[in-house]
Amino acid sequence: MKPLKIAIAGLGTVGVGVVKILENHKQMIADRTGRAIEIVAVSASNRGRDRGIDISGYDWSDNALDFAGRDDVEIVVELIGGSDGVAAALAQQSLSNGKSFVTANKALIAHHGTALAACAEENDVALRFEASVAGGIPIIKSIGEGLAANRINKVYGILNGTTNYMLTQMEATGKDYGEILEETKLLGYLEADPALDLDGIDAAHKLAILSSVAFGVKTSFDNVYMEGIRRIKLVDIEYARELGYRIKLLGISSLSKAGLEQRVHPCLVPKSAPIAIVDNGFNAVVVDGDPLERTFYEGRGAGEGPTASAVVADIIDIARGHRGPAFFVPVAAMTDAQPISISDRFGPYYIRLHVEEQPGVIADITAALRDEDVSLHVMLQKGSEQDGTVYVVMVTHETQELRVMNALDRIDALSSVIDKPLAIRIENL
Amino acid sequence: MKPLKIAIAGLGTVGVGVVKILENHKQMIADRTGRAIEIVAVSASNRGRDRGIDISGYDWSDNALDFAGRDDVEIVVELIGGSDGVAAALAQQSLSNGKSFVTANKALIAHHGTALAACAEENDVALRFEASVAGGIPIIKSIGEGLAANRINKVYGILNGTTNYMLTQMEATGKDYGEILEETKLLGYLEADPALDLDGIDAAHKLAILSSVAFGVKTSFDNVYMEGIRRIKLVDIEYARELGYRIKLLGISSLSKAGLEQRVHPCLVPKSAPIAIVDNGFNAVVVDGDPLERTFYEGRGAGEGPTASAVVADIIDIARGHRGPAFFVPVAAMTDAQPISISDRFGPYYIRLHVEEQPGVIADITAALRDEDVSLHVMLQKGSEQDGTVYVVMVTHETQELRVMNALDRIDALSSVIDKPLAIRIENL
Repeated sequence: MKPLKIAIAGLGTVGVGVVKILENHKQMIADRTGRAIEIVAVSASNRGRDRGIDISGYDWSDNALDFAGRDDVEIVVELIGGSDGVAAALAQQSLSNGKSFVTANKALIAHHGTALAACAEENDVALRFEASVAGGIPIIKSIGEGLAANRINKVYGILNGTTNYMLTQMEATGKDYGEILEETKLLGYLEADPALDLDGIDAAHKLAILSSVAFGVKTSFDNVYMEGIRRIKLVDIEYARELGYRIKLLGISSLSKAGLEQRVHPCLVPKSAPIAIVDNGFNAVVVDGDPLERTFYEGRGAGEGPTASAVVADIIDIARGHRGPAFFVPVAAMTDAQPISISDRFGPYYIRLHVEEQPGVIADITAALRDEDVSLHVMLQKGSEQDGTVYVVMVTHETQELRVMNALDRIDALSSVIDKPLAIRIENL
Repeated sequence: MKPLKIAIAGLGTVGVGVVKILENHKQMIADRTGRAIEIVAVSASNRGRDRGIDISGYDWSDNALDFAGRDDVEIVVELIGGSDGVAAALAQQSLSNGKSFVTANKALIAHHGTALAACAEENDVALRFEASVAGGIPIIKSIGEGLAANRINKVYGILNGTTNYMLTQMEATGKDYGEILEETKLLGYLEADPALDLDGIDAAHKLAILSSVAFGVKTSFDNVYMEGIRRIKLVDIEYARELGYRIKLLGISSLSKAGLEQRVHPCLVPKSAPIAIVDNGFNAVVVDGDPLERTFYEGRGAGEGPTASAVVADIIDIARGHRGPAFFVPVAAMTDAQPISISDRFGPYYIRLHVEEQPGVIADITAALRDEDVSLHVMLQKGSEQDGTVYVVMVTHETQELRVMNALDRIDALSSVIDKPLAIRIENL
């Protein structure tokens, strides 16, 4: 069989990793696919940069969009990034010109997944993005194919390695958020725009993709509730531990008759939950389906190896002739799900207040909670800080989010309350 | 597209589960495959038995082998079990007659996997067996497709839910092996032939399959070293815990230049390893590859839901047109790997001795270890039993298995040693 020819747009860490795998494992991959895979062209912003690989054997394009027009290219691999711009144009043009398209670009798929899937279908080519979510775990294939016999109810996980690293390091070293943030920056673990990590945007991109794969709903990134880790203090991690929990930034998506709930935020999870011991740069995803119930996947979240491995798996799949719909159902069968507001979330909450130590404070706080019908399960107050202030930590019974937020607004208005009160959702997974 | 017609041989728990999924999720599956899946015939040993499902709409056969000759059947689903007999004949005849074959039968694939894969290839049909290993995890698809870009070095896991349940319950309840065995029998968790569970045979079947999927080696069940859990006492679980470990029955397979190592036996694994917290009926598999490194999968090991879910996933895959080789490389590319003997295993060991408390015992034991060049890292001896005997527990430094076994033979010959000495391999995963 004649070789499958591909072009790679973007030669950063992942692009270089893809080239390495395709060259180093050439024979193994040919055995596995029955077809040699040949890189014919590459493109990047800087031709001369030393990448530790030899690219002299491939055609060079200054403009990645050239690949969409090359007759000899069967798959365009996009590793540029960004939800719009060149990446989106390359996707659209490649698919329209009858080329399969493989990408690691979560922003692109979260924003334009359904439209691109429709374009792939019309042109009878493949759109694949295994590397866009948790590169070290073949989670998209697992859900869409391995668990295809199941009606999935819920999918959730640790989808951002950088913030998981930061939370792990805060607990391990006893350093506060600011200090760990600086260290993480120095290690180069943060995205060029740190908000993508710290505000949960990156995790939300991935969650929107998982929702579509698991539930067959049209991608709706705009309906993902997002809250990052910027307000987590060391004191929260310590109190959580004392209460039998760890703090993790989770993406949670569930579909029920009430609609589709998609949210990314820090959670208190029981110490004994499998997801609680997923540390540092690892990602993990839990899928709950009928009849399978809970199934759990863990692997490295980012970096050259895992992401490139997922990109090449997609290329191999296409070489093997797998050409199914991008979200495992035809676009015509994808549904618009009613979004559920975060205000309707029902469950227990961890609340941390920083207050001045003076008579009547606790009475005022508990009155605010009572007025919103929020009842307490646990309340902790231990010694005071050197400055005469004190942290008060409470765990509520199960309640509606709106009530908690209203109570916190009342509490925030009290003169003795110093920082804006923080609520962290408790997920008893 | 016309419906895909299947026949199901065997209507035990799993067969009933498959019927339920295909009926209850009919529309969802048709959306996902683009093709309705229709059960046309079933077969079992007792037609009249109440199974809680209505089978009156399907043709009945007293002889499952009839299915291999039916022109209207595209996939034969075998849920009878057993490495030979009807199951093997049905596989051979179905594939030879150009029908795809889906099975949950680990014994069949462990013994005849390569030959059946060759038969499927010759007839250009699919042979699929996702349900044969860890039904609650799509591990075969994950390794063969999701991780296809990787050269796999090692795959290991908890592959038998029943023994994992027993070990978990011993630790949780403080009851000894015999008592937990009786309880497990009453719960109906044991195979009809309990040796399959207790002696590690079931886990070894699964490991042989994983080896072929991960490494592309021909299935060689006869080269799997097997040791079950019958000799594990509560005292071992307690000492292991004290030493920072838990005891798990693992299947471990690795391929290196030296050859293929395949072994099933109880292990001490560090408490903090992800696999150490996989409890009760859950299975877990860890895959280590280049460039992906470690990736971890966990799900229910057995029962109607997980196994049937995996069987139906295979049917869906075939309905989607996936027809690749059973072990993800053509049989012609599968290799014969040199087996590595268990005697060559190199690592630390936990050793438990039960001895009479008398002068000179420890001197004799340590002399035996010294004579075989086995050096000790830890030695524990705590109080004596009511009968004047004592347990002595030791942890060795890394050493060759043959030396340990020779030392234990010497120790076993000592007059003060009561039970046969037990060594458990320590795996610092």
